Parts: sequence; C-alpha cells; structure tokens
Amino acid sequence: MNPQGDLLDEVTPELVRRIEAALDEGRTDQVRGLVADLSPSGQAAVLEQLPDSQREVLVGLLKRELDPEVLTELDAEVRDEVLEQFDSKDIAAAARELETDDAANLLEDLPEEERREVLSELSPADRIEIESTLAYPDESAGRLMQRSLVKVPDNWTIGQVIDHCREADDLPDDVYDLFVVDAAGRLRGSVPLGRMLRTKRPVPILDLVDPDIPSVPVTADQTEVAHLFRDQNLVSCPVVDAEGRLLGVIMVDDVVDVIDEEAEAELLNMGGVGVADMHAGTIRTVRLRGLWLAVNLLTAVIASVVIGQFENAIEKIVALAVLMPIVASMGGNAGTQTVTVAVRALAMGELTAANALRFIAKEVAVGGLNGIIFAALMGTAVVVWYQDWRLGAVIAAALVCNLVAAALSGTLIPLGLQKFGVDPAVSSTVFLTTVTDVTGFLAFLGLATLFLL
Amino acid sequence: MNPQGDLLDEVTPELVRRIEAALDEGRTDQVRGLVADLSPSGQAAVLEQLPDSQREVLVGLLKRELDPEVLTELDAEVRDEVLEQFDSKDIAAAARELETDDAANLLEDLPEEERREVLSELSPADRIEIESTLAYPDESAGRLMQRSLVKVPDNWTIGQVIDHCREADDLPDDVYDLFVVDAAGRLRGSVPLGRMLRTKRPVPILDLVDPDIPSVPVTADQTEVAHLFRDQNLVSCPVVDAEGRLLGVIMVDDVVDVIDEEAEAELLNMGGVGVADMHAGTIRTVRLRGLWLAVNLLTAVIASVVIGQFENAIEKIVALAVLMPIVASMGGNAGTQTVTVAVRALAMGELTAANALRFIAKEVAVGGLNGIIFAALMGTAVVVWYQDWRLGAVIAAALVCNLVAAALSGTLIPLGLQKFGVDPAVSSTVFLTTVTDVTGFLAFLGLATLFLL
Repeated sequence: MNPQGDLLDEVTPELVRRIEAALDEGRTDQVRGLVADLSPSGQAAVLEQLPDSQREVLVGLLKRELDPEVLTELDAEVRDEVLEQFDSKDIAAAARELETDDAANLLEDLPEEERREVLSELSPADRIEIESTLAYPDESAGRLMQRSLVKVPDNWTIGQVIDHCREADDLPDDVYDLFVVDAAGRLRGSVPLGRMLRTKRPVPILDLVDPDIPSVPVTADQTEVAHLFRDQNLVSCPVVDAEGRLLGVIMVDDVVDVIDEEAEAELLNMGGVGVADMHAGTIRTVRLRGLWLAVNLLTAVIASVVIGQFENAIEKIVALAVLMPIVASMGGNAGTQTVTVAVRALAMGELTAANALRFIAKEVAVGGLNGIIFAALMGTAVVVWYQDWRLGAVIAAALVCNLVAAALSGTLIPLGLQKFGVDPAVSSTVFLTTVTDVTGFLAFLGLATLFLL
Repeated sequence: MNPQGDLLDEVTPELVRRIEAALDEGRTDQVRGLVADLSPSGQAAVLEQLPDSQREVLVGLLKRELDPEVLTELDAEVRDEVLEQFDSKDIAAAARELETDDAANLLEDLPEEERREVLSELSPADRIEIESTLAYPDESAGRLMQRSLVKVPDNWTIGQVIDHCREADDLPDDVYDLFVVDAAGRLRGSVPLGRMLRTKRPVPILDLVDPDIPSVPVTADQTEVAHLFRDQNLVSCPVVDAEGRLLGVIMVDDVVDVIDEEAEAELLNMGGVGVADMHAGTIRTVRLRGLWLAVNLLTAVIASVVIGQFENAIEKIVALAVLMPIVASMGGNAGTQTVTVAVRALAMGELTAANALRFIAKEVAVGGLNGIIFAALMGTAVVVWYQDWRLGAVIAAALVCNLVAAALSGTLIPLGLQKFGVDPAVSSTVFLTTVTDVTGFLAFLGLATLFLL
C-alpha cells in the first residue's frame, strides 16, 4: 500500500524545484531517481511545469525509459513539443504499447509525412487498427473507443466463457463487462463479470445478458457520449456500427478526459482565450489573444462612436462623462451573469426549445427588478452627489433600460448562436458587451440630451 | 438492445412539450406513459425542464412510483422543491433503496426536525450508516463513498473467494474489484475481478493482490479525490481511516458528478453567479445576483470618482470622454483573459509555486507586447481621427500601461486569493476590473492632463 494520501499530491512544487535544481547542475542520476517513482500522470505534470529548456533536457534524459502513458497524459501543446524530440522509431515504439485510441491520438497531430513513417514501423495489424481509428471523425465515439474487449458468442455457456478467459492470456486487467454477440457480430448485450462469477458453469451466457444496456453508434459525438455516461452512470459503453455490430468499447476514464476538456474549453472561451493558451509560447499567445482583443477593440470603438455623437452634451454637462461608465458597466456585468448561466445550461442540455421562453421571461424579470433596485440606489446617490434630481432620474432610467437590454441580449445571443451552430461560449460575451455598451451610452446620453439640455 | 442513439437524447424538447400539454389537459394516463420508460436521469431532466406548477403536479402523480434514483439525479434546487411534497415516510422509503452516499445526500439538506423523523423511520442498520456518513465533513471522501463492497480476508484462496461471492446473494452488479484486508481490517490491496477469473481455485488470493493501488483517507477533500481518479484513470478507489482500515469505496460515477459540479461552479463564479442560479426562483435570483452587482457598482463608482478628478480636462478636451472607455475596456478584456487562464490552471494544479514566477513573466510579456501592438493601432487611428499626434501618443501610452497592469493584476490577484484560501474563481474578476478601470482612466486622463492641457 502507498502511504495514505501521498498520491493525492504526488507532484509538489518542492519536488519540481528539486528536479529543476538537479537538471541545472547536471546531476542526471538524481533526476532519474526523482522522476522514476512517479506515476505516468505525475511525470506528465513535472514535464508540464518545467520551463521549455529543462523539459527538453529531461525528455532527452528519459527518452527510452519514458512510459508511453506519459505522452497520453500530457497537455496537447506540450506533447507536440516533446514528440519533436522523438524520431519515427521512438514514436512507433510508444504507439505499440498504447491502447488504439491513445496511439491514434498520439499520431493524429503529426505531420502527414512523419505519420506515414511511424505507421510503416508498426505491424500490419497495429497499423490497420490505428488507421481505421483515425478514419473516424475527430471527437467521435470511434476515436474514443478501444478495441481490446472480451467478446463471446451468444450460444456459449458460462463454463465456456470462463475457460476462454483462462486460456486467453492477453486479457487486460480492466475488463469489467463481457459483451455477447450473435453469429453476425451484432451486440446482444453485456454481462458484468460479477454476475458471471456468481453463476453455475452450465448456465447459458444468454441467460445473464442485460439486453437493455446502452450502446453508442461509432459516429456519435463525444459530447453526446459524455452525456450518456453521466446520465446512466456508466463505467464502460459498447460502440456499434450502423448494423449494430460491436466495434469496441469506450471506458469511463477517456470520458472523464472529454468532460474535463469540454469544461476547460467552455471556461477559457468565455474568458476570451483558447485551450492552447496555458502552454503556448509567448509569441503564439500574443497572436491568439490579440485576435480576441482586436474584436473587443472594435466593440469599444463602436461604443466610442456612440459617445462621440453626444460631445455637445458632455461639453455642457461634464458629469455625464463621469457617470456614463457606471451605466455601461452595470449592464455588462448583469449581461455576463445571464450569458454565463445560459451558456452552461445550453452545454448541459438544461436549456432547450422546451423551456427557452420561460428562461428568457425569468431573465427579463430579474434584469428589470435588479434594474429598478440599482436605479433607485444610483439615482438617489446622484441626486445627493450632484444636487440635481433630473440627472438622478436620467441615470435611473438608463440603468433600467440597460439591465433589461442585458437580460434580453444575454439570453437571445447564446440561444441564437447555438441555433446557427456556433459555440455560444466562444462569442456570446463580445456581442453582449457591444449591446450593453451601446445601449448604456445611448440611453444615458440620449435621455440626458432630451431632458437636461 | 436499445435502438442505437435513442438514449443519447432521450429527453427531446418535443417530449417535454407533449408532457406539458398532457399535464395541462389532465390526461394523467398519457403523462404516466410518456414518463414511465425514461431512465431516472431522463425523468430528472423532465422535472428540471417543467415549470414549477407542472413539476408539482407530475411529482404528485408519480410519487410512489418515482424511482429514488431520480432524486439523486436532480439539481439540488429542484430536489429540495420536490422533497417538499414528500413526507418523512416517503423520503425514508426512497433512502432505503439508495446507496448510503446518495441517501445521505438526500437527507443532508432537510431541516433538522424532518431529518430526525426520516431517520427514525429507517432500520437501525441503515440509520447508523447514514448518520456516520453525515458525520464526515461536507465534500469529503467519507461523503462520496459507498459502503457496499466485497471485502475478503487475506488468508483465503481464490476458491474460497469465489464460493463466498456465489453464496452472498446481495452483491451488487457493479463490483469490479475485490478488496483484501488483514485480520485488523486494514486494506492489503485489491484484486480486479477479471484477474481472479483467470486464476485457479487453490491459489491464495494474496498472490493476486495489487498492493500498489491508491487509496484515499476518509477525510480527503473531494477535489483531491477527483484529481486522483483523473490522474490514475481509476474506476473505483478504496477509502481508509487513519489506521488504514477499509471503510468504503468511491465509484467513478460519483467522481464524474464532482468534476461536473466543480467545473460548473468555476464557470458560474467567474461569470458572477452562484451554482443555484439556473433553478432558483425569480426573487431569489434577483437577490443572489444583486449582491454581485452591488460589489460591481462599488467598482464602477470608484472608477467614476477617478474620472471626476479630471472634470476640468474633459471639459477642455471632450475627446477624452469619447476615448477613455476604450482604454478601460481593453485592459478589462486582456485582464479577463489572464485571470481565466490563471484560475483554470490553479484549479487543475498546473499553476503552482514552482512555476508561478514564469507564469507571471509570460503574462507580463504577452500584456506588454499586445499593449504595444494595440497602442500602435489605436494611436494611429486617433491621430487620423482627431488630427492630433499628442492625443494619439497619450492613448497609446495609456494602453501599454493598462495592458501591463492587467497582466500583473490578472496573475497576482488569483495567486494571492488562492494563497489566502479564497476561491479565486469567485472574486478575481471584480478586483481585476477595479484595477484595470482605475489604471485605465488614471493613466489616460492623467497623461492627458500632463501633456495636453
């Protein structure tokens, strides 16, 4: 047994620092010693946390000893860099030891040329498996599934199945269910190992089959697969082709990776960054983020043009310039709240055509009520501050307008983007702030022009 | 077999609409028919998507037939509402059919009084199990674990273990690993069922034990448990007390729920909303969001006070009022990018004391470079627009200042909050926008006052 909890934080900042120091001073034996006992994901964490130059040294040092599992645990950006130190033979050696889905993942980002070289190093059987995995669309069930599984004919008895398992010595340890297929290879259902263990040898396997287990078509999107695992609390799920023939099995650990990736993409996209951001180099990050900032600059310039229409009013009442960012900012924040809830609910399938109208109505009610509350608060403050009840009334009215506009655009923008097949996490906020900035400045400065000049 | 893919989107908007219509018109048999074949999570999805009044009718209709699993699948807000229609006897009946961890979850939010009533309806054995689960801290491994598992003494042979499994008829189907304990109940390791199946009866079970399996202390935080499952690709993990005695097992489906919850909390908190938001009523939502908006109002007022110091400058050069939101907005957006990456990296353990300095340095470099790029762009535009090179130079300088300030605060704020034990997802953005608004307005209006007046 491991001492309790030591795996819970295998890679401490202290450990990374010691590895860094040892690498700096060329104490290679010590480096090996520090890294050797880590799990593959621990080694991956170390590689991710080291600066580029030291990572290169460490990979060069470990190379042949590096557990191929480490490659599957690495962040894609870092993995691509590590693979640059590998030649085709090294990559082929790693691919041989991995499950098909992981091997395919390793190869998919390689340049065409190199991928062909790696494939030519593999046995024909491995090559065909990996090539047919890569033939499935990106992010499909076919890419996620592994092909090693226990498949038994539907006319066997428990005894035959057990003998078969005993004789096959290449069965993986992580088999939890047996899959029963008919003569044409079509999935009849599954039998949990535990249930088989409790049954006498002469019983036909078909008696134990659970025919109601879910299966996924090989073309299903990984997001749908993740929803299925979540909803049905699955540990594994068979994958079938259009004729219902069993092709492979998706394991829950790969689905956990999908769930993590999608949550990460959603969060990062909402914040205006891409998934590659954390491990991309400085220049690449500048370019990626710059694109998003350029879009935002456009939004800001539009808002600025709106303000420009009211230069005359601002010149006469400079307090307008002092107060106007408050109206825009409150709208932006309220709208971000709405957009965030909408994006999450859309991603989780909780916001659908069935309840969209109710959702919009609730958001508008919330926006209107908070608009009134903050209008009263801010209106009073302005009356006290500037001794001008008309200015107070104008900012109050503008706040109500903008919070209602925020609620409407905060719901309609993500719903609309989703309808047109655009990921609402990516671009909702930029459209939203355009609306709330323009509405905020227009309502406040426009009302001021009408009633104060 | 289910027809392929039908489980992938069991609950369509169309289905929800049909259930709504049938409920409206009191066609109870049809409602029952539509709901009956759904999985527990499908029924939960229907309940979540119905408006409150119809949900109440549906729950009243199903009540006794409602699969208790549905309750565990429901969003906490909705579950609390549903449970209000249940009396203690109903809840006790549901608790009896659930795993200990799910039953404890059901009871934990009940009012003290009602919880006691429910517990008194249960058998002493069930009551003790649930009470001891509730005695573990919220969000700890003890709360996540289930107690039903297969535990065998370390002096048995495979044959004895198999016979034991055959005789015990209450073994759950979802057993994947057997746990081997010594005479004192201390965990010696685990044996995957598949491995046991392939071994002859006289072999001692201890020969098959994998002593290196990870285990978690019962007090471990659920976030750490999720990291462990993720890193080690686990399907289940034993839970032990301080003496290493086996107490229960955590299954991956419960960990998937934890991962979902944490990702959801992170995303929603970054957007200024709480996890209860989606299913809370209008008034409650107004209150929850209003709190956050009030904090943001404070930020906006601070920025406004800064602008107020420069009324004189704005009166003379009204273009300052037109342009100043651009400087603040670019800083806010660039800072949000940095904060988002930092919050995610902190949550995933990718940003630690070991690489924090490098992270800050990269962010400042990115901020500085993008600052220079957008300063050049915006500076030129302003020179063209206003025919005033000094105004262009001032906005350019202010943009560089603010993007560097955004990079610094976007890294230091989440790192600082984390250090002081505050969840950086919750409050990073409000501190950040305070910094970028104040810096933006101060730099732009201050430089303008120095060089343009």
